[in-house]
Formats: sequence, structure tokens, C-alpha cells
Amino acid sequence: MSSNYLNFRNSVPWVILLLEALFLIRSYFLLLRLDGLDLLQSSYPEFQDVNHMVIFGFGFFLMVLRRYGFSSTGFNLLIIVLGVQCAVLVEDLLRVIFSFSFFSCSIAKALISMTAVAISTGAVLGKTNLVQLIVMTIVELIVFYVSRWINRRYLEVGDHLSLMHVHLFGAYFGLAVTSCFPEPSPRLDKNRSTPKSDLFSMLGSVFLWVFWPSFNSLLAQSRRKAVLNTYFALAVSAVTAFMLSALTSKDGKFRMTHIHSAALAGGVTVSFTAQMISHPWIAMILGLLGSAITILGSHCLQRCLNPPLKIHDTSGVHFTFGLPAVLGALAQVVLLVIREWTNSSSLGYLVLLHVGAFCQTISLALLTGFITGFILNTRLLKIIPVSKYFEDQFYWEVSLNVKL
Amino acid sequence: MSSNYLNFRNSVPWVILLLEALFLIRSYFLLLRLDGLDLLQSSYPEFQDVNHMVIFGFGFFLMVLRRYGFSSTGFNLLIIVLGVQCAVLVEDLLRVIFSFSFFSCSIAKALISMTAVAISTGAVLGKTNLVQLIVMTIVELIVFYVSRWINRRYLEVGDHLSLMHVHLFGAYFGLAVTSCFPEPSPRLDKNRSTPKSDLFSMLGSVFLWVFWPSFNSLLAQSRRKAVLNTYFALAVSAVTAFMLSALTSKDGKFRMTHIHSAALAGGVTVSFTAQMISHPWIAMILGLLGSAITILGSHCLQRCLNPPLKIHDTSGVHFTFGLPAVLGALAQVVLLVIREWTNSSSLGYLVLLHVGAFCQTISLALLTGFITGFILNTRLLKIIPVSKYFEDQFYWEVSLNVKL
Amino acid sequence: MSSNYLNFRNSVPWVILLLEALFLIRSYFLLLRLDGLDLLQSSYPEFQDVNHMVIFGFGFFLMVLRRYGFSSTGFNLLIIVLGVQCAVLVEDLLRVIFSFSFFSCSIAKALISMTAVAISTGAVLGKTNLVQLIVMTIVELIVFYVSRWINRRYLEVGDHLSLMHVHLFGAYFGLAVTSCFPEPSPRLDKNRSTPKSDLFSMLGSVFLWVFWPSFNSLLAQSRRKAVLNTYFALAVSAVTAFMLSALTSKDGKFRMTHIHSAALAGGVTVSFTAQMISHPWIAMILGLLGSAITILGSHCLQRCLNPPLKIHDTSGVHFTFGLPAVLGALAQVVLLVIREWTNSSSLGYLVLLHVGAFCQTISLALLTGFITGFILNTRLLKIIPVSKYFEDQFYWEVSLNVKL
Repeated sequence: MSSNYLNFRNSVPWVILLLEALFLIRSYFLLLRLDGLDLLQSSYPEFQDVNHMVIFGFGFFLMVLRRYGFSSTGFNLLIIVLGVQCAVLVEDLLRVIFSFSFFSCSIAKALISMTAVAISTGAVLGKTNLVQLIVMTIVELIVFYVSRWINRRYLEVGDHLSLMHVHLFGAYFGLAVTSCFPEPSPRLDKNRSTPKSDLFSMLGSVFLWVFWPSFNSLLAQSRRKAVLNTYFALAVSAVTAFMLSALTSKDGKFRMTHIHSAALAGGVTVSFTAQMISHPWIAMILGLLGSAITILGSHCLQRCLNPPLKIHDTSGVHFTFGLPAVLGALAQVVLLVIREWTNSSSLGYLVLLHVGAFCQTISLALLTGFITGFILNTRLLKIIPVSKYFEDQFYWEVSLNVKL
Repeated sequence: MSSNYLNFRNSVPWVILLLEALFLIRSYFLLLRLDGLDLLQSSYPEFQDVNHMVIFGFGFFLMVLRRYGFSSTGFNLLIIVLGVQCAVLVEDLLRVIFSFSFFSCSIAKALISMTAVAISTGAVLGKTNLVQLIVMTIVELIVFYVSRWINRRYLEVGDHLSLMHVHLFGAYFGLAVTSCFPEPSPRLDKNRSTPKSDLFSMLGSVFLWVFWPSFNSLLAQSRRKAVLNTYFALAVSAVTAFMLSALTSKDGKFRMTHIHSAALAGGVTVSFTAQMISHPWIAMILGLLGSAITILGSHCLQRCLNPPLKIHDTSGVHFTFGLPAVLGALAQVVLLVIREWTNSSSLGYLVLLHVGAFCQTISLALLTGFITGFILNTRLLKIIPVSKYFEDQFYWEVSLNVKL
Repeated sequence: MSSNYLNFRNSVPWVILLLEALFLIRSYFLLLRLDGLDLLQSSYPEFQDVNHMVIFGFGFFLMVLRRYGFSSTGFNLLIIVLGVQCAVLVEDLLRVIFSFSFFSCSIAKALISMTAVAISTGAVLGKTNLVQLIVMTIVELIVFYVSRWINRRYLEVGDHLSLMHVHLFGAYFGLAVTSCFPEPSPRLDKNRSTPKSDLFSMLGSVFLWVFWPSFNSLLAQSRRKAVLNTYFALAVSAVTAFMLSALTSKDGKFRMTHIHSAALAGGVTVSFTAQMISHPWIAMILGLLGSAITILGSHCLQRCLNPPLKIHDTSGVHFTFGLPAVLGALAQVVLLVIREWTNSSSLGYLVLLHVGAFCQTISLALLTGFITGFILNTRLLKIIPVSKYFEDQFYWEVSLNVKL
């Protein structure tokens, strides 16, 4: 290992220290008070569900690589807690300077925003070093705030809905970033999963599945509706995942990655509309379509799109979160058109706003993702050689080989 | 592998599709509205506990077999979500057609009913293919509704209590079904557990232990009483499990299967009476007896009863859920006699009702279980050769051997 | 194995039976009624969080040893449920005899008290047999009640605060006990962790991290403040853990034990003061200092202090819980001095009370710990030879070697 790299790795703690010192100083001088903090905007148990899901669930969910278990769980924890602090203090700063009433401070919202980063992390899993990951976290979080701010200020998107763009934003930002990284050699077997890592990430997936209704309903106006619709959509998408996995694979066997991704697709698809759907069959149809687009997408993307574009999406966030979120945004517009059909005067305007919010989010995510990916790959930060990808031993003191 | 089998496996997704289409169509035409759905009949956190327990906990709990981890968790998810949809829509159908007020629709109740299926699944774990499992789920769910309906209509059993027959019904239905399956060869080592699968299922068992008070109290009138009594019963049964395991095994060592089963026995035993016991020592005695009957039962059944009857009960549901539930039903009658002793006029009638409900549930479970087992073993569905039992590779694309 | 030992092991179940019979009889004769039991003193979901954390989380957290997974999880369950019963009945007894209003009965408090035992268990993990562990549990629990009683009666410590001494008490009691045990041979590799056991205990650590705010706030007067401060302290300590782990280890790599211990340090440090801090930056500073003292302590202790004193602290409870709790107690005094600076008349008295409570707790823990350790090592109970330390097979029927 070059001494050049060692010097670099030794700088990791200083970067973290710098950030943490910044948070502390800002929190001290702004006299951030607890009174100004809305923890929940809803009750504690639901907040706890989302906390449990984002910290424990995603750490579990990302354990797909055979030699990357420590980093998946550990770095997820680090990134989330750094991001939450960052988010709370950015929000507070905005409120103090601009007397914003757009964003009310809350840890719950900060956690939901961090889901975007957790999703993007999945796309570059095992390919970034920790400094790259931290830079990505900070940039992505700030850009996501900007995107939400544009949506709320110019496109009349509500607070809850602007947060639900988190899957869309996270997936495409992550994809744009990962497209700037060199591809791992196809002969490499470290980026494959073993049955044991598959089992762990399956358990993580079931874990997320259970908590998804809490996630979708945390800030919704009619929480009961949001919970029920999300539950039905998730149920149908889990069923569809098994069905399509058997249909599309050789010999009619199930493929674990299919179940792992598509069981959650319903929750992502219905996230935009969960609080306004009043007939559960609509949520069920959306769950079915979300699951279908995930499994078909996983086949198409891995065969047709990713190889020519040289995109390597480690844990498949494009089809797990990206495509269902696109479908969900589309469904939102269709449902709006159906509902407001009689009221044709404002229909065009409303549709325009929704399509605008969708296009703005996705294009900002892609654009800033490319820029971030480019920055991460500059000489200053670009450190990991491709042969060291997906390797816990690069970051952790491991006594033996970690074969998860 | 015969092409005959491949043809059959290819039919799996179509069966699922057919079911899902039925659910969708019925949900569309009945205009099932969310307003008509009681999600909870109690608050969201408790519902979430039960959801977490049934989906994640049982998936974890059933991971006892060394090569069957994927299927234990995956199929549990599939079966539960299929069943919940089925239950919700059956309930809605009944209400619309007969204007039943017996059953109010609720996902929470549907989840609790599905526990019967999860328990039965434990008895046939690794021996059924997925089509057999789905057929069993649908049949068992409908029969359980019929049994509850008889109990409520003719035997004056309350709503909560009729649901608590779920362990009794699930265990004996599962046993009756598994008795129709050919026994695996005793030389087969795939149906043994490894230390690692034991550890996983132990974690699953502790997980269920933690959530059992939520399960027993979800629909109880006096939730506080139900929680406390269940907690005490569980505590005593965990202690007794260690005690009796050391007493009954060679060298005074603990046996993992004992702890795994008997720690939960208290929760099962007390499920009928948790909301009416007013002295915790009664709950504690019940927990002790439940745990004792589980461990003694596991010795007797595996040596004396199962071999002559040729019953192979993969994860031991007979002694884990069946015997403690029988004990609990008995205890309910005894407690009733003691409480109503002075009021001798109605005593005989009340005892008759309770004994009737117990006998009705268990005999319906056994009868329909045998019929279901017979149907599952007809030419049409009977596919897995005994040599392929307990094998993930039969259903899943597995890159290596799964040695959990 | 000597027949002497076998005879002893056969006595384990009788000890458990005796205890359980005592609990039952006392519960019967005291006519312990559910009406007299405060389950929660707060709502059920928070109780459930703490239950989940203490039973499942600690069982997971303690799985650090390669061949001790069964015992870590299993014995944790046994000890906790024995202890909870013991605590509830001791409280009830005290109330009946002395008409104490000091302690109101509650399972939630009993569970929090049991955390002291779970922490002490970590210090002697793998070195005690089950009878020793049970004796230690009972003694520690009773002494902790005495310590709380002294704190409340003579040192004017509030109910919530006296419970929060649980980390301090548990860690130093455990240390004193373990110092009486013979050290394992340094050539032994059974007390090392494998990557897999590290991963499990990391997951357990993240699990505890998620639920720590519930733990710190369960009995606090201003629950919202306690939750927020604990959350911020935990966030900063997780970040600091990564920073300092990279700074202090060779090559700038992360060490799993550091993350595992130091991520939780913030929660322990802030436990005394979480409900009275009104500026989150103070909680953040405490989290930072707690994490720093844990990591620096782990280096100092393992190199300088433990070898000469011949202390072998299996899972590092001294630096994980002990040092942060000392820091937290110190911080409490400092914060008190700052707040009451103007009111100089009562300041000295208040400081004296706080310092007294701290000194009383730690010295009682050390003293009784030594005595307990001495008793446990008498001929009557001292059974395990050093060569059999850290070995599941000594207690469990294990089909193969347990290599976690």
C-alpha cells in the first residue's frame, strides 16, 4: 500500500473532527434551543419506528456483499448521524437567517431526508472511501434541501410530499455519482453475494417492509389512510415479487435479489399518493405495477442499459428505488387528472406543477450527482484502486477474512 | 429432475397471479372503502408490534433447518401477505352479503388469524411445495373463520377469545396435515439444525418472547391486565424452560430446542385467560405448567407418540403451541368453575359452552387438517420427493450450498 | 470431567426451582395484586422499547465471543426474567412491610434495574457457571436496591436519577467480581472474537443505540428533552467513535470494539443530565467527551491498568459503561455548579449531596462486588476450570463446534 494512501487515510479523522466541530460551534452560537425543535410533529413511537428503520434496517439491508458487512452497517450509522446533525443545523440556520417558515426543524424530517443518502450509498457501496462518502452526504443533503425548497416555493408542493421525493432523488443522485466511478472487473467475485449475506439482507428487507407504513405516514395529514394504503401496496408487491421472480428466472426458481428489491417496491410507489387514495384497490394496483417494474427493470437494466453506459449499481438502487418512484410520480399525476377531471379550469395548471416538481427533482439529482461524482474522482479524493473495492479489510482491523 | 416437475413449478406464478387477480377484482367490485376498515381497534404502536412479530419474528423463528433459511423467511412473508389480503376481503364479503356484525374488518385481526397458518407451516416446514402451502393457507384461513363463527354464534365466545384459539387451531391443523405426508428418512441430516441455525431461531424466539404481551393484549378489553399477566407467565415459563431442560437432558446440559419452544409456552397457555386473571401468581403457575408440559411433551411425543403414528413435526409445533394451548383452554374452564362456584345455576351451562368451544375448535382443526393433507397429497399437487425435503436449492437460485 | 462437577451441574435446576418456588409462594401469600402494579408510569410503547432493548438487544450485544453465542443470549434471557420477578416481589415486600412509598412497583423500573446485572454479566462473561451467575444476580439486585434507598433517603436523589446510577453500579460491581476470578491464559483464543461474532455484536450495538433514547427518557419528567438530548449525545458519540478509532489504531483503520463500545458512550454519559440540559450543544459535548474517554480508556485500561491488577474484563464494561458513567456524574455536578452559581447559599450542600451519591454508589458497588466475587470463588460454587472458560459446549448440547 502506497504511503500516499496511508497519509490520506490518516486524514479521515480530521475531516470528521472538522465537521463535528463545525456542528458544535454553530449549535453553540446560534443558541439552538430544544424549545425550537419539533421532535416529532407526531408521536414518539412512530418517530422511533423510523429511527429504527433508517439506522438499523438500512444497515442490515445493505449487507449484500460478502466481505463488506462491517462497512455496510458501520458506515451507514456514521453517515446517518453526521447527516442528521447537519440537517438539523442547516434547518435552524435557514430559519434564523431568512426567518423561514418553510421548514420546521425536526429530527424526524432529518431522518427521512437522510434516507436519500442511504439510498445513494447503496449505489456506490464498496467503491467509495469514507471521505468521499462524507463529502457525498453533505453535498447530497444540501442539494436535497434546495430541491425541496424549489418544490415548495415555486411549485406549490406540500411539506409531506416534498419529503416523499426522497427515493427519487436518492436513487438518481446515487446513479449519477456511481456512473463517474470506474467499473469493477467482471471477474471480481467480491461484489457477489453469498447465501449468508443474501440471508442477512433478506432479513433487512423484511425489517424495512414491516416499518414502511410508519415511514410513509409519519408526516401525512391522514395517517390512517397512509398506513392502510401503504400496507396494501406492500402486501401486493411482495406477492408480485414472488410471482414475477419465478416467471422470469430459469427453471421457475426464485431469485433472492428480486424478492429483496421488489417486496419494497410497493411502499416506494405509493409514497406520493398514500394519503390521498381512498380505494385500496388503487394502492394494490400501484403495488403490483411497482413490483413489476422493479423486476422487469432489473433484467433490462443489468443486460441492456448498464453495460453500454458503464454504470455499476452495487445494490441495484435504480430498480429498487428509482423506477418505482418514477412510477409513483406518474401515478400521482394520473390520479390527479382523474379526480380533477370535471374541474378543467385548474387541471392543466395542477398537472404542470406536478410534472414540474418531478422533472426538477430528477434533473437536479442527476446534474448535481454528476458534478459530485466528478469531484469525488478528482486526484484529491480518488484513492481506492478498483482491486480494493468491496473489501472490509481496507477500512477495518479484521482478524480473519470476513466471509459473510 | 423430471420435466413433469418443471412443468409444475412453472405453474406456481400462475396460481399466485390468479389469487392476486381475484383479490383485486373483488376489492374493486365490492368498492371496499378504507372508511369501512378498522385498522386497529387499538393504537398503531401495538398493531405495529404484532405486524413486526408475525412477519419478521416468525420468519426468524422458523429458521431451524440448516438448508432452509431462505424459504423459512421468504415463504413466511409470502404466505402472511397473501393470507392477510384474503382475510380482509373474506371479512368484507361476509359483511356485505350477510350484513354480519360479527366480524369487524381489521388488518390486526387478519394478522392474528394468520398466526394459525404460520404455526401450521412450522409443522410441514420443508415438506410442502409452494402451491401446497398456498392451498393450505387459503383452506386453513377459511376453516378458521368458520370455526370462529361457530364459536361466536352458537357458543357465545367473545371476539377476542375466539381469536385466541389461533394457537390451538394452528397446531392441530398443522399436525393433521403433516400426518398425511410421507416421513423423511431418519438417516437424512438436512432436517437437523446446526449451531448457527439454532442461534438464529433462538434469536427469533427471544424476539417473539418480547412481543408476546402485545399479541395477547391487542384486542383484550383490559389491556393492562393482559399485558402484565402475559409478562409474568412468560417470565416463569422461560425460567422453567431452563430448569426442566437441565433436568431432563443428559449430563444436566441445556438443549436449545427446549428453550426455543418452552420459553414461549407461558404466553400461549395464558392467552385465553390473560385478561381475566387478577392475581399474578395464577398467571405464573400457568406459565410454569405450560413450560413443563412443553418440555415433557417434547420427550414423550418424539419417543412414544410420533413414531407409531408416523407423524413428522418439523419444528415441533405440537409441543410448542398445541399442548400449552390445550392446557390454557383447560385452565380457563377451571378458573371459570372457581369464580362462578357460588352461582351454581349458570355454572353448568357456562362450562358446557367453554368445553364445547374447545372441542369444536380442535375437532374441526383435525378433521379439516386431514382432509387438506389428503388433498395436498393427491397426484395433482404431490410433487416433492422425500429426498428433496428441507432444501432451499429446490426453490431458490443459490450460488453455493446454504449451510446456515 | 469429574463426577464432582456433574453432581454440581445437576444441582442447577434445583437452585432455579427453589427460587421460582419462593417467588410463587411470596406472590401468593402477599396477595400481590395487579392493581398495585404500575406497569409503566408511562405509556406501553416506551415500556416495550425498553423491554425489547434489555432482553433482545443485550442478548445480541453480548455475542462477542466466538463460542459463546448460545450462552450470551440464553443466559441473558434467564437472568433478566429471574431478576425482574425478584425485583417486583422485593419491591412489593418492602411496600407491604415498611409501607414504603419510596419505590412504586413497576416492571419498567425492574427492567431498568436489571440493566445493572446485564452490564455486570458482560464483565464476567464466559467465566461463571450458571449458579454463580444467579447468585450474583440476586445479590447485585438487592444491593442496588439498598444503594438506591440510601441515595433517596439520605442524599435526596430523585427516583429517576437514582435509577440512572444503574450503569455506574453495574460496571463497577462487575469489575470487582471479575477481579476475584482467575485470569484466562493469554494463549487462549476462545475469548477472541471472530468477524462474524463482531458483526453480530455490532448489530446488537446499533440496536441498543436506536433504543437508548427510550431508556433514558422512560421515567424522566420532561420526556421530550430527555429524548432529544440523548439523541444528540448518541449522534456525536457515534461520530467521535469513528474519529478516535481511526486516530488511535495502526494504519488509521477502524477497530470494531471501539465502535461497538464508544457509539453508546454518549447515551451513558448523558443519562444523569438528559432531562435538565436545555441547550443541545451541552449534550453534544458530553457525547463527545464520553466517546473519547471510552476509546482512550480502552487503550489505557487494557495496557496499563488491567494487567497489573489482573483484571480480565471480557466485554470491556469498564470503558463501555463505567468510565462514561463516571464522566456523566462529574458533568452533573459541574452543570449544577454553573446553574446554581448565583444561589451560593445552598450550592455547597447540593454539590455535597451529588458527590455523596456518586461516592456511595461506586464504593458500595466495589465493596459488595469484591465480597460477591469472593463468595462466588469459594469451594462451594467455584467450579469452572480456566481451560473451560468461554465454551458453550460446557452448558449446552451442541451438535458441532460453535464457531460464530
